[in-house]
Amino acid sequence: MTSAPGDSLFELGDFVLQSGVTLREAKLAYKTHGTLNADQSNVIVYPTPYSAHHGDIEWLIGPGKALDPQRYFIVVTDMLGNGLSSSPSNTPPPYDRARFPSIAIRDNVAAQHRLIAGHFGVERIALVVGWSMGAQQAFQWAVSHPQMVQRIAPFCGTARTTPHNAVFLEGVRAALTADAAWNNGWYDAPPHRGLRAFARVYAGWGFSQPFYKQELWRQLGFSSLEDFLIGFWERRFLRRDANNLLTMLGAWLSNDVGATPGQADLASALGSIRAKALVMAGETDLYFTPEDIEYEASLIPHARYELIRSVWGHQAGNGLNAADSAFVERQLKWLLAQ
Amino acid sequence: MTSAPGDSLFELGDFVLQSGVTLREAKLAYKTHGTLNADQSNVIVYPTPYSAHHGDIEWLIGPGKALDPQRYFIVVTDMLGNGLSSSPSNTPPPYDRARFPSIAIRDNVAAQHRLIAGHFGVERIALVVGWSMGAQQAFQWAVSHPQMVQRIAPFCGTARTTPHNAVFLEGVRAALTADAAWNNGWYDAPPHRGLRAFARVYAGWGFSQPFYKQELWRQLGFSSLEDFLIGFWERRFLRRDANNLLTMLGAWLSNDVGATPGQADLASALGSIRAKALVMAGETDLYFTPEDIEYEASLIPHARYELIRSVWGHQAGNGLNAADSAFVERQLKWLLAQ
Repeated sequence: MTSAPGDSLFELGDFVLQSGVTLREAKLAYKTHGTLNADQSNVIVYPTPYSAHHGDIEWLIGPGKALDPQRYFIVVTDMLGNGLSSSPSNTPPPYDRARFPSIAIRDNVAAQHRLIAGHFGVERIALVVGWSMGAQQAFQWAVSHPQMVQRIAPFCGTARTTPHNAVFLEGVRAALTADAAWNNGWYDAPPHRGLRAFARVYAGWGFSQPFYKQELWRQLGFSSLEDFLIGFWERRFLRRDANNLLTMLGAWLSNDVGATPGQADLASALGSIRAKALVMAGETDLYFTPEDIEYEASLIPHARYELIRSVWGHQAGNGLNAADSAFVERQLKWLLAQ
Repeated sequence: MTSAPGDSLFELGDFVLQSGVTLREAKLAYKTHGTLNADQSNVIVYPTPYSAHHGDIEWLIGPGKALDPQRYFIVVTDMLGNGLSSSPSNTPPPYDRARFPSIAIRDNVAAQHRLIAGHFGVERIALVVGWSMGAQQAFQWAVSHPQMVQRIAPFCGTARTTPHNAVFLEGVRAALTADAAWNNGWYDAPPHRGLRAFARVYAGWGFSQPFYKQELWRQLGFSSLEDFLIGFWERRFLRRDANNLLTMLGAWLSNDVGATPGQADLASALGSIRAKALVMAGETDLYFTPEDIEYEASLIPHARYELIRSVWGHQAGNGLNAADSAFVERQLKWLLAQ
């Protein structure tokens, strides 16, 4: 629709969530790159991962890159709860703050579907691509809209949250909510101790053991391990709203394509996918493990599974280092050429 | 000295710590099993791991077991800070509670040496064996007293704390101290929210991804994942004192045999060990990884490295399931026969 990148807010109106709650005047934030072509064959949907805003994941987008705006119409969608789309932090009473409803991955895909099909009038999507919680949304897109989605590239994420991943999430949630300043979500000032604890716990999961052993945080511009824990991790979460983080965490915890209406279980849901799938895992990812991801890929009819050979752990898919990013880009270009 | 097991408290007197502080009227708790033989050749030292009391690790001890009290004189020593030996929770003012000094692994070994050499008058130790932080103490014994220690069997622990392990510890510490009730250690009532958060974060690290996937907590008598998080993990740490936990955590963080006076670094320290070493790692241990442990074992002159093939993660070495326990016992019996 537009050739200049644009930040936009799509009005979802009265939006009925999986939980049964109606989120009134709900909004979906997004940003487009490139131009929709005449036959509408060049649409890429690229949902945000946990805690990110659309501007945080543009490393895959650019002339000559896998997501080339000279060729594709790329719609980067913001997750509900991320602070730009409807969230605890930006919703007026009565559904504000601690009263903001639970959000599911399917709610995110439903909102994005309204934007793509309803607003842009698009009936086919060339690719849904996403890292981490973005991958969860890609899987759900392919299950919920098998006729519409031609390709998916979920990487470093699963179609159903595993029990160990849930324990990790219970841990970070407990760390945040141990801060009395959180006040069950009714804080006025941010519960910064809880946010910092959340960040420190997250730090151990976000990168791998060898990443820390090799002090690869130096490549990111940090001068010591403590500088990295504060300058990278605490900074990352201190700038986010606690209720927003907990809302997105809830979507992650409940993520399961097998719970899609009409599906019996994970296997039937993944088996129903018609899209060509490129499914990637990080070799040293501690919470979206290669074993879990390879297993899910084996349940998808037209899937190629690729391992990102990296010691960057989960962050191998986050565009932080050249080798991993080049690998992901190469794989995406392969998929888009199919 | 005694054939009936006995709980005892050894008076360390004025005990000068690595930090330079003198801990006055310091105490080392311990329990003995079996009888010291005439030539003093049957002494086994078995230090406690993180947060444990001597009674918690008796699974290796018993007639016919690797640590057979009919054959060996087994001294189970309690770590400083564990609540039985001198600790924040039991030391009178002025070194009580938040003022309790920092403790090093070398302090623990020095205290145990006073007990073994000073009190029991023993000059040779047949074996120092320990799991997790117990392994740290076994390594330190072999480095600090190479003439005295004939065998060591450190399992699921390292001689130097790795950076990633430190990040895990920073995470649990941040979770505990995010609770304002902790009050910098000057609490009257236990900071139970912080302790519960500590426990939930720990839960993700303590067992492996496949352990949770396979719901092996059912074998421990729990009815759901949440029941396990509360009934196993929260229970485990709620019964402990917060300052005690943080004291032991500090010893863990600073653990490094390479910092032993007279040693240049990790390699020189491990290279100086004269004891026969049996070094074991848990295949799916998330913080004392097999890679780290195998590397350290390679630096010890007379070491045998063995992998506990188990999905029980770090807890593979904690006597919780029959197969892993049998493996550890078999290996220990082999070492004691050398």
